[in-house]
Amino acid sequence: MIELAQQIISIMSSSTGEDDQYSLQAKITVQASSIRQMKKDSAPANEIAEQVTILTDLRAKLAVLLEATKDESDSLNRKAFDELLLRKMYVVQSFEIHNGPAGLFDFGPPTCALKSNMLSAWTRHFVQEESMLQMECTNLTPSVVLETSGHVERFTDFMVRDEVTGDCFRADKLLEDAIDEFLADKANAHLNEQEKEEHLKIQRQADAYTAEELNAKLKEYKVMSPTNKENNITFPFPFNLMFKTTIGPEGNQVGFLRPETAQGLFVNFRRLLDFNQGRMPFAAAQIGLGFRNEIAPRNGLLRVREFCMAEIEHFVNPNDKSHPKFHKIANKQLILFPSDAQLGTGRTIKTTAGEAVKQKLIDNETLAYFVARTQIWLEKIGVDPNRLRFRQHLKTEMAHYAADCWDAEIKLCHGWIECVGHADRSCYDLECHSAKTGIPLVASQRLDEPILVDKTIAEANKKLIGPKFKGDQKKVLAAIEALDGSALDEFKSNLDGKGVAILDGGFEITPELVSFKNEKKHIHEAKYLPSVIEPSFGIGRILYAVLEHAFTQRDGDENRCVMRFKANVAPIKVGIYPLLSNIAFTPIVSDIQEMFLHMSIANKVDASSGTVGRRYARADELGIPYGITVDFQTLIDDTVTLRERDSMEQIRLPISRLVKILKILVEESQSWEEIARKYPTVSSGDDTDSAAEKTSAVNGNIAREVTTRATFSRPAEKLI
Amino acid sequence: MIELAQQIISIMSSSTGEDDQYSLQAKITVQASSIRQMKKDSAPANEIAEQVTILTDLRAKLAVLLEATKDESDSLNRKAFDELLLRKMYVVQSFEIHNGPAGLFDFGPPTCALKSNMLSAWTRHFVQEESMLQMECTNLTPSVVLETSGHVERFTDFMVRDEVTGDCFRADKLLEDAIDEFLADKANAHLNEQEKEEHLKIQRQADAYTAEELNAKLKEYKVMSPTNKENNITFPFPFNLMFKTTIGPEGNQVGFLRPETAQGLFVNFRRLLDFNQGRMPFAAAQIGLGFRNEIAPRNGLLRVREFCMAEIEHFVNPNDKSHPKFHKIANKQLILFPSDAQLGTGRTIKTTAGEAVKQKLIDNETLAYFVARTQIWLEKIGVDPNRLRFRQHLKTEMAHYAADCWDAEIKLCHGWIECVGHADRSCYDLECHSAKTGIPLVASQRLDEPILVDKTIAEANKKLIGPKFKGDQKKVLAAIEALDGSALDEFKSNLDGKGVAILDGGFEITPELVSFKNEKKHIHEAKYLPSVIEPSFGIGRILYAVLEHAFTQRDGDENRCVMRFKANVAPIKVGIYPLLSNIAFTPIVSDIQEMFLHMSIANKVDASSGTVGRRYARADELGIPYGITVDFQTLIDDTVTLRERDSMEQIRLPISRLVKILKILVEESQSWEEIARKYPTVSSGDDTDSAAEKTSAVNGNIAREVTTRATFSRPAEKLI
Repeated sequence: MIELAQQIISIMSSSTGEDDQYSLQAKITVQASSIRQMKKDSAPANEIAEQVTILTDLRAKLAVLLEATKDESDSLNRKAFDELLLRKMYVVQSFEIHNGPAGLFDFGPPTCALKSNMLSAWTRHFVQEESMLQMECTNLTPSVVLETSGHVERFTDFMVRDEVTGDCFRADKLLEDAIDEFLADKANAHLNEQEKEEHLKIQRQADAYTAEELNAKLKEYKVMSPTNKENNITFPFPFNLMFKTTIGPEGNQVGFLRPETAQGLFVNFRRLLDFNQGRMPFAAAQIGLGFRNEIAPRNGLLRVREFCMAEIEHFVNPNDKSHPKFHKIANKQLILFPSDAQLGTGRTIKTTAGEAVKQKLIDNETLAYFVARTQIWLEKIGVDPNRLRFRQHLKTEMAHYAADCWDAEIKLCHGWIECVGHADRSCYDLECHSAKTGIPLVASQRLDEPILVDKTIAEANKKLIGPKFKGDQKKVLAAIEALDGSALDEFKSNLDGKGVAILDGGFEITPELVSFKNEKKHIHEAKYLPSVIEPSFGIGRILYAVLEHAFTQRDGDENRCVMRFKANVAPIKVGIYPLLSNIAFTPIVSDIQEMFLHMSIANKVDASSGTVGRRYARADELGIPYGITVDFQTLIDDTVTLRERDSMEQIRLPISRLVKILKILVEESQSWEEIARKYPTVSSGDDTDSAAEKTSAVNGNIAREVTTRATFSRPAEKLI
Repeated sequence: MIELAQQIISIMSSSTGEDDQYSLQAKITVQASSIRQMKKDSAPANEIAEQVTILTDLRAKLAVLLEATKDESDSLNRKAFDELLLRKMYVVQSFEIHNGPAGLFDFGPPTCALKSNMLSAWTRHFVQEESMLQMECTNLTPSVVLETSGHVERFTDFMVRDEVTGDCFRADKLLEDAIDEFLADKANAHLNEQEKEEHLKIQRQADAYTAEELNAKLKEYKVMSPTNKENNITFPFPFNLMFKTTIGPEGNQVGFLRPETAQGLFVNFRRLLDFNQGRMPFAAAQIGLGFRNEIAPRNGLLRVREFCMAEIEHFVNPNDKSHPKFHKIANKQLILFPSDAQLGTGRTIKTTAGEAVKQKLIDNETLAYFVARTQIWLEKIGVDPNRLRFRQHLKTEMAHYAADCWDAEIKLCHGWIECVGHADRSCYDLECHSAKTGIPLVASQRLDEPILVDKTIAEANKKLIGPKFKGDQKKVLAAIEALDGSALDEFKSNLDGKGVAILDGGFEITPELVSFKNEKKHIHEAKYLPSVIEPSFGIGRILYAVLEHAFTQRDGDENRCVMRFKANVAPIKVGIYPLLSNIAFTPIVSDIQEMFLHMSIANKVDASSGTVGRRYARADELGIPYGITVDFQTLIDDTVTLRERDSMEQIRLPISRLVKILKILVEESQSWEEIARKYPTVSSGDDTDSAAEKTSAVNGNIAREVTTRATFSRPAEKLI
């Protein structure tokens, strides 16, 4: 609190000069964070009201500044981009002909292939290179699991609806905003300290009211719908962001569609550790769907109700978060936005992963290792590194148990969007599931030197426990065995004093069920609850970022859209174009296609009657990086032209070299420039369709035709 | 009816000799089918009762016969298999530590990789080789879509519960069975024709009763729980096999988890056809989840509540179901079980796809093409072709609209299990969605010769229709434009007569909104509603089949389980084993691993302290087809041993050849025998751990050690 206040003062006092967007943004972050803290600390009402006014002014100032300094080159041609996505069936509104609900999208053929290639790259980069244990857990999740993780409780909000439009809003947020407005209103300036404090007290407990209380307060402050101030709002009703269903015919077993994939991995921890032969640290990974019943889906693919995620749970000893392969990425350049910078300069920092750990910007090696690995993967699949940064969570943003969190944020036309989270969640998750189930979720560490301990241990009376607890007996035995240290002391004193003690899991134990004895023994290994470091990838959002960053238009021609996908993720790697629809080309085209199919190089034959230029334009819209044209010269010497999408350069090469060269290009082990140097270039044209500036030369019975597009060979006399 | 009766008579009369299982099975099929038909035709009660008695006898006879002729070699060691699946984390009960609900399973690392490899093979084999349009549609599906497809109506059954155990049953089935039992009971032999008919009438309408009526009838026949005849059953309640939820915060928009992936493709038909530049025929494909809230999940992975499917919808002109690539598979051998054989000989037929079409066993080329392609894919991923057959649906099994259906059935320890359906669904699906939405889902066919037509056409008055129908105007205009033939005549006569006519989609049209005119024109293309041929793959079941068919145990040693996965789908392709945990091996092992990672060959280093033999045994359980051992000779001459899982043969080869050879073996472009011929074999041992029969020879400072397991080289004197 004092630190924050000092930061505010230091920034405020330095603001005699002109503010730029960075310093303004930092001031806003500090101000908002400070108000949040003041409310938590029950600061006096008038002070808060003053600070809210300052925040509002700062925000207005930033908006004016951003509008004035808007960079045209930075802006995406949204209309052309959105039209292309639909026209080429990258993305379609789900159940379009039935007017399907908002927030659900289908992926058409190009996106389907792009996503599959991205995920293959992800699996190679993370699962295979790091020997992670990949799992596939179910989407349907019984309530008990999500009660344990806290989702059933935390994902519930009271909602109200606009009675006219049906728009939905969070009831507590409406109330909080209404009280801010009420106190800021000059008409209420006459209120004294005590009166103001009464209002703020109501504001502070907005999220703790029952529906009835909330309703009364909303009425009291005359809250109307934000959509239209004439419209009434309904009585508040509870709303959980998870999709609920029932599992089994009985209808009494509540289940949800998982809001994240992580829980499936946590509950399998014991088996995973066992599969890994007990060795720590190790990581589990999962690619799958997540579901969130968004109140107001928006921003196209960025806030949807069903989405693909890829999550990694790296289990590690909390006392040793070093990473054996850290040296491999220590020099990787990162753009970081640490919490201090967010509250201070407002500017990001360019540094290396190694420096970030050394300077304690990032908490530990393992967390930094994943941050760097994420950066490498995102670059590999085509995210522009200049539009990528890692933002640290502010202390006020983080969950109480989290040690450190860094979000990979990608700059899109909607602003900086969180696409990958990297959280050090300490041992929260395993602890919850262990406490609920009574099953210890621990790992063992071999001690360098055995320790001699003299301690009391509890011994279960198995003969009595079996019949008494039946199905639960294993849990009870495990819980008794796990009793240790202060827990054992408390258990024993309860038994001695009250004649009954309660185990984890709620089992009642009476004295005849256990005995105690003293034992001296050498301990060779120590058990511990592992920490979890969780990189969590929003694949749907990253997919959208790859689409947006790939989109461009040919210089000077806004109608010619090009998707500059990197070859390794491009949905189709190569197009095959017979110059004319002539039966002489058919066997050659199908032989070439066969060769590519055999090598699993995704290809597309376009034998439609349009000019080759038009077919290139269609291929550009699908982001096909390479194009092969079969022309009349092919019939003579078995060569074809190969065109590269971005440079529009073409070379001529023998068919026999095609597969090998395409393989090199698709795997990106050599660049186009390196390959193109080795073969004759046949065009420096601009790829347009214009037949102007045509020149031709006859050589034998082949005529060479040089258009602004390219050089093609045609028969001098009609051969066929 | 008459045909069936004749078949029964012909089989009955020929059954003077001993029946084998095939003829008995055929008799049972005929008998059951005949009873079904008799019920539908309201045959006299006494006749049905007689036939039911015959059926019961036949079934008992078959059970006795099967028990007597049980083939031991055929049977799977279920216990060892199930234990292996759990121990090696192939499959785990979901949310095991929370006692998760039945019918949900998680896939651990080996199955996850196996499934991914199977699906890659599927995508290559179907999507890429056939240029299909792959999509990814959402699992959440609004009610209207599944109302249109018939799932909301058809998937509802009345359920009853055992009041003691909670077991659930279909109420109508219980009633039907109870009436069969009642009539078969000798105590009721006194009933006259008319009385019996009364009971059968009740039986016939069992699925049409309301809950109250059903309840009354169940009481009347004193129906108790099948689990325990002492237990009462509850009042019937309706139950739909789809998981229901609500979409959006309002809570009034009912949605379901899709029971199949097909609907997403049907509703996208227009955009798919457009993406395909209007060309027919074409196929769309989707891999994704399906959900069914099974009443009683059982048989492990075969009847689960959440499962992976892969579906293809091949859209084709109903008048031309030939397939351009049919010649490529015409000679493919298939094991067919046509409906006639099921009702006649009870034996399958071995024939080719070409013959099957020629003899009209399979309805058309396209359907037979997919049957053959499925056979090829299943063989490729490791389904035993001797335990695979295609069974045709009986007429009484098929939906009314279906033209022909063939199920790929795989023989598992649970019997013959349907794993892939191949259905010619005619134009049913597109027709339903078109009728509901008012949007024509048609394709165009270019006519060989234009046709001159003189016809009446309806012209919409756009100025009036726009304001009147607002958001629906496009649908209304399309529906008016689509009016043709008798539909137009009826529309016009309604307008003239009643002053109002209703369009598809329920729009009311009044006379001022349309005008009519006569037009003569040449028609160059005809529109038609495409037929759909649907191969639908139950990936989860096929996965289970691959696991079961891969499972084996080493001769003479039941404890040594081996998963004989084909190399192309094996989760891990190669194991890497340093002979001892010695730092001299570490850099070599990691270089070899690096090489494999670079080529995306999934590998696993096992440097644990067990003997190499024990590590081979572990690898066998994961189905790793190849193993590399780095031994002391490696330090001298850069060679390693390569072991093949099934033959347990080993060869010695240079490290420099490893990647190339593994690539060949994994792609299965050469067999192990072909490769092994080129290198020295170093072992013909039986892979056991026994140190007996060791021989050794010293050569320089390397000692060769020949065990029954293999030949390894060790330093003659301690080098390190």
